[in-house]
Amino acid sequence: MPSEFALIDAIARRAAVRDDVVLGIGDDAAILDVPAGRRLVVAMDTLNTGVHFPDDTAPADIGWKALAVNLSDLAAMGAQPAWCTLSLSLPASDAGWIDGFLDGFLALAALHDVALVGGDTTRGPLSVCVTAHGFVAPDCALRRDAARVGDDVWITGALGDAAGALTQWHAGDERDPVLRARLERPTPRVAAGLALVGLANAAVDVSDGLLADLGHVCMASGVGAEIELDALPVSPALATAFDAARRRILQCTGGDDYELCFTAARRHREALTAIVGNGDVVMTRIGRIVPGNAVVAFDGDGNPWQPPRRGFDHFEG
Amino acid sequence: MPSEFALIDAIARRAAVRDDVVLGIGDDAAILDVPAGRRLVVAMDTLNTGVHFPDDTAPADIGWKALAVNLSDLAAMGAQPAWCTLSLSLPASDAGWIDGFLDGFLALAALHDVALVGGDTTRGPLSVCVTAHGFVAPDCALRRDAARVGDDVWITGALGDAAGALTQWHAGDERDPVLRARLERPTPRVAAGLALVGLANAAVDVSDGLLADLGHVCMASGVGAEIELDALPVSPALATAFDAARRRILQCTGGDDYELCFTAARRHREALTAIVGNGDVVMTRIGRIVPGNAVVAFDGDGNPWQPPRRGFDHFEG
Repeated sequence: MPSEFALIDAIARRAAVRDDVVLGIGDDAAILDVPAGRRLVVAMDTLNTGVHFPDDTAPADIGWKALAVNLSDLAAMGAQPAWCTLSLSLPASDAGWIDGFLDGFLALAALHDVALVGGDTTRGPLSVCVTAHGFVAPDCALRRDAARVGDDVWITGALGDAAGALTQWHAGDERDPVLRARLERPTPRVAAGLALVGLANAAVDVSDGLLADLGHVCMASGVGAEIELDALPVSPALATAFDAARRRILQCTGGDDYELCFTAARRHREALTAIVGNGDVVMTRIGRIVPGNAVVAFDGDGNPWQPPRRGFDHFEG
Repeated sequence: MPSEFALIDAIARRAAVRDDVVLGIGDDAAILDVPAGRRLVVAMDTLNTGVHFPDDTAPADIGWKALAVNLSDLAAMGAQPAWCTLSLSLPASDAGWIDGFLDGFLALAALHDVALVGGDTTRGPLSVCVTAHGFVAPDCALRRDAARVGDDVWITGALGDAAGALTQWHAGDERDPVLRARLERPTPRVAAGLALVGLANAAVDVSDGLLADLGHVCMASGVGAEIELDALPVSPALATAFDAARRRILQCTGGDDYELCFTAARRHREALTAIVGNGDVVMTRIGRIVPGNAVVAFDGDGNPWQPPRRGFDHFEG
């Protein structure tokens, strides 16, 4: 069984390099150069086994997802990712498991030119904590408190897929591979977040469920929102696996899709459509920001609709 | 039972502010301003219950220690602390426990003007992950790879106290309150680390044990070290609680003291003594850097001495 130090060596050998990493893994701390004229953006999220992923999740998928949820937070700020640190708690030191974990973690890191610069490994129940660092130009970040009455509400990609996979897992049903991939290998919308700078006002990533996360934007901005349920984007896989009523609940309250929900002035509709035309992720207009403080979803008949339970709380879910 | 969002609100209300925090707790990520002409220093460490602290440790002590071990890493780089993020995994949402935890965490943060700017709370076995951020001027950091043959080896404070408390805990003995405080409320040597910039060559904080941590410095620097066992500083509490033979083992191999072990050229002896005279933490000269790659400890008769077991590995300890 390799020691903690051997593990850290093994991780260090696989970490990518960047010119702005003055000192990476192996000292008491990393030393990093933030570019002149840029602000530092920092996100931190933990995944625990049995809570954030099924116990039988492949190590590579856990590695991917642990970084993905953090890059998603940077994306929701419109930030350019740069570095991350990783704290890995494992019941036992298992070089094979860690290699698999790094396969997923570093594959996603490479896609976004993110360097792993530090962290620790320690004994404990399986838990993965990541801190991601990125950059924004001053006053260019997409904040939750910047939605304005009259804004359109938009969403990237499709909603409800990850919750669909989770539902199948909890029910013991066979898991649809497309939905399962959306749960286990979510795509952080980094390029979309960067493209939204200067166009979007507020943004949030959908980790707790559309209505809950849009509610956070509304609360921070002092506004309300109206959502058209029939406008919510749905994947073919979700449409096949769930009937309309269950699908609606998954789309509105399911967490873990890591799509970006954002608001933008009407005058940017054309520019936002052009982003979609560029071949990047689909963006769908799903509602509008209104006065008030409530998020109200309307069905095709114009009647307000409430899900049986709102959002996903990591202390309840 | 408060929800995750209520908990985050409660934490946000208690967090300190700093002018360089553009956006703190409550968005997808924090936005921070690194001062011009400074490099960013980032450390990340996790504490797990039953591994890094006894299960009956007070929440306030866990909070203190979780931040202390990270500030200690910054201190070992000679960095000025600025911000931290906190990821808290708890079996259940317990507002009283979190209040106690924050009492300790924020008390230490306030001592060093550190702002808590983000993180997450989640369900899982009790685990605390902290990322600490600080600043250094370019080329001023105290790195592990900078020890030079002929350097003196120094240590701040006293050695073995935390391991003494841990030994008493494992043995079921009554725990000496002074030793216990050293284990549960370690003092990160931030002021000492800053004072060492320009004087010390290499530095490391003693978290795994003196011989192991000095070994890391030697390996990174391509040098060896000789330690005079009789020169190792000992606290009155440790001298009372353990005989000379057991004390020696604790001083050489005990982790968790979070003292700084550093090397410095002989010409800086007077300047280093002046730092001590200023009323800051005691610094003791305990050996020297030599050619080779081994750390050898000598007893009072000049005979090399080996501890029964070297260092503390979080996967074995």
